[in-house]
Amino acid sequence: MEKNIITISREFGSGGRTIGRLVAERLGYDFYDGELVKKVAEETGFDEKYIEQEGEYAPVKSWFAYAFTARGVDAMTGGLSNDDYLWATQYKVIREIAEKGNCVIVGRCADFILRDHENCLNVYVHADMEARAERIVQKYGERPDSPRKRLEEKDKKRKLHYKRYTGQDWGVSQNYHLCLNSSALGIGRCVDMIVQAHEDHPDEIDWEA
Amino acid sequence: MEKNIITISREFGSGGRTIGRLVAERLGYDFYDGELVKKVAEETGFDEKYIEQEGEYAPVKSWFAYAFTARGVDAMTGGLSNDDYLWATQYKVIREIAEKGNCVIVGRCADFILRDHENCLNVYVHADMEARAERIVQKYGERPDSPRKRLEEKDKKRKLHYKRYTGQDWGVSQNYHLCLNSSALGIGRCVDMIVQAHEDHPDEIDWEA
Repeated sequence: MEKNIITISREFGSGGRTIGRLVAERLGYDFYDGELVKKVAEETGFDEKYIEQEGEYAPVKSWFAYAFTARGVDAMTGGLSNDDYLWATQYKVIREIAEKGNCVIVGRCADFILRDHENCLNVYVHADMEARAERIVQKYGERPDSPRKRLEEKDKKRKLHYKRYTGQDWGVSQNYHLCLNSSALGIGRCVDMIVQAHEDHPDEIDWEA
Repeated sequence: MEKNIITISREFGSGGRTIGRLVAERLGYDFYDGELVKKVAEETGFDEKYIEQEGEYAPVKSWFAYAFTARGVDAMTGGLSNDDYLWATQYKVIREIAEKGNCVIVGRCADFILRDHENCLNVYVHADMEARAERIVQKYGERPDSPRKRLEEKDKKRKLHYKRYTGQDWGVSQNYHLCLNSSALGIGRCVDMIVQAHEDHPDEIDWEA
């Protein structure tokens, strides 16, 4: 059966989000951008209006609206840190999204959350440090810290977050079906390869041949 | 420029060797099977006749013959452990093979040895434990130890060897351009994807799009 849920984990500056969006467009799948959700959650304190205004990716809005309206933020936050609260909510929401299928989910440990889901293709996108540095300066501009330092800081934070909530090491190939170096392979080819990997494709080659 | 050297690192039982051979056949490249070399070296004490008899993969023979005839085994082994001697020889030989290009090299830390080679595509092949266990029983038969135990032992040894000689962690996606789960993707599709990844393919997609 076709893998109709694609999770994309990625290094900051690797173009993984862009790749995910292009894969979703190519396949006509919904696109869930975890970074947007996180950013919105952090910056707005769960203000739905902000999400509506920023709602470039439509499914995020309804997903978010569901998570924080139907269940009630106040009722849920008692006793949990914001991080744990966000994790618990995202866990449930990502499982619910997966039930609907036909989607690309970027970030948010979705690979781990959906690890037992047989129709899920887990992809990891990384890139050479030099290419990532060039990309973040192009995209986010210069900052007081060097691009390399900014990237190392981001990598460290993502690694810790992933370890904390999954117990696994981030970026270990065994946790994914497909890992791609986007600076070596190119964005377009990464998109092609993910689409190819998601298709139903019976293996007709004898391993013993 | 096309990547005309392909290294394939792989978990035992993942089918990586078979994939490498099929990629080499598809592209008309020479195929260098590090495991054969290791096995031969370990079992024969560098007996060339044995290698000739077992020489299913022609390039291995000439490579081995070169390594151990032209330079002289006795002259080189003084002062080095067998492991270190084998490593030093393989390092040099793999660099020489790479100079000729148009080849697939399986195992032997070739990814690390050729890490600064711009025409080299580094691939890592892994598979789910269950599929690997089934495969090794199919291929090598039952043994007193369970398949899982045999695999864990092999993984451990390869990991230690890789760490010892490269200083890197084995199976970390960042060390490869492409990592593939062969039991999820299928052997045939892994071959297709490696061939696709090795081709010259200018990236026409704007990362900012």
